[in-house]
Amino acid sequence: MNKIITIGRELGSGGRELGKRIAEKLGYAYYDNEIISGIAEKTDLAESYVKQIVEKNPVANFPITIGHSFYPPMNFNMDQTTNIYVQQSNIITEMADKSDCVIVGRCADFILRERNPFRIFVYASPKSRIERCRQKASENEDVSDRQLWRNIRRVDKHRAKYYLFYTGRKWGDKMNYDLCINTTNANIKTVAEAVVKLIEIEQR
Amino acid sequence: MNKIITIGRELGSGGRELGKRIAEKLGYAYYDNEIISGIAEKTDLAESYVKQIVEKNPVANFPITIGHSFYPPMNFNMDQTTNIYVQQSNIITEMADKSDCVIVGRCADFILRERNPFRIFVYASPKSRIERCRQKASENEDVSDRQLWRNIRRVDKHRAKYYLFYTGRKWGDKMNYDLCINTTNANIKTVAEAVVKLIEIEQR
Repeated sequence: MNKIITIGRELGSGGRELGKRIAEKLGYAYYDNEIISGIAEKTDLAESYVKQIVEKNPVANFPITIGHSFYPPMNFNMDQTTNIYVQQSNIITEMADKSDCVIVGRCADFILRERNPFRIFVYASPKSRIERCRQKASENEDVSDRQLWRNIRRVDKHRAKYYLFYTGRKWGDKMNYDLCINTTNANIKTVAEAVVKLIEIEQR
Repeated sequence: MNKIITIGRELGSGGRELGKRIAEKLGYAYYDNEIISGIAEKTDLAESYVKQIVEKNPVANFPITIGHSFYPPMNFNMDQTTNIYVQQSNIITEMADKSDCVIVGRCADFILRERNPFRIFVYASPKSRIERCRQKASENEDVSDRQLWRNIRRVDKHRAKYYLFYTGRKWGDKMNYDLCINTTNANIKTVAEAVVKLIEIEQR
């Protein structure tokens, strides 16, 4: 069975960067919201991505721009979102069938629970999250800390709601994860290195 | 400044074993009951009584009655337990001054917060905790799972109460830790090895 690492993360905790770095270090495929949405929208995209994975080059550069800090909150039109959820779940399952992978977000920890994924949750202090969001997105330059934190909290709430709705579980509750990492003031590159060591030891 | 690792842990999560193994691997001093013994040496209170207060309840019943019906009997208990807490804090601080160390429990993460300890919290599923408690203590042999879980929950509640009382923080809340480790089905020896790697990388 392929090895699967899932990452849940608070916005601004560096979870996505961590996921990418872990995937890179382990030679696993990497998926996140944008990639999975992109695949769901475009079949040809899925094909080329899958082809790339099948050709044993799982973490080569993939032409989807990443850098969305504030992924637009989903409109809870349930029929539509459930449809998207089902579609994305299928894609996640397919991807997990194809190769070892790191999947960030999308309730992947729950969707793939039968496959015993290594489930990570990444979090950080408000101050640290605000700083990371500011560094990552130039459009946040002129936004006050207070406004930025309000935006972050909005995304948190949306993620929690989404997670609860589809899994029946509390988002970020440590019982749902194997490892919870506080990235306040942490260098994500260093954390990635450490987590890879940990996973390698666990998988021996 | 000495390197300090603090470990908070749910009963039956293997936190103490983890602490000992980490200390052994890193060559750090290890403290848990030693601290209690230290307190006992400096006071007239029996070690078992100190242990009872520290482990079970900051407002434990104290076997001296106060003959004043308008005085809440709590006050005396508070003084006693707070006195023990203060002594305990002093000892923990002394230990942290002496050498690199691993300290399990006793609000050490909070007491030493100015020294930037690496704060670990260890937890596990109910089933796993029951099993570990059963393995560790022969007196649990004839106790039903239900009763054992009730006992475990009671200790949890006391620890949470103690922690909240002295730190103002929620025990086990991941925001208060740098790393939270789920030891369900885990081999503590393996986890210790992994955590040591992680700490070594973080401290480079």
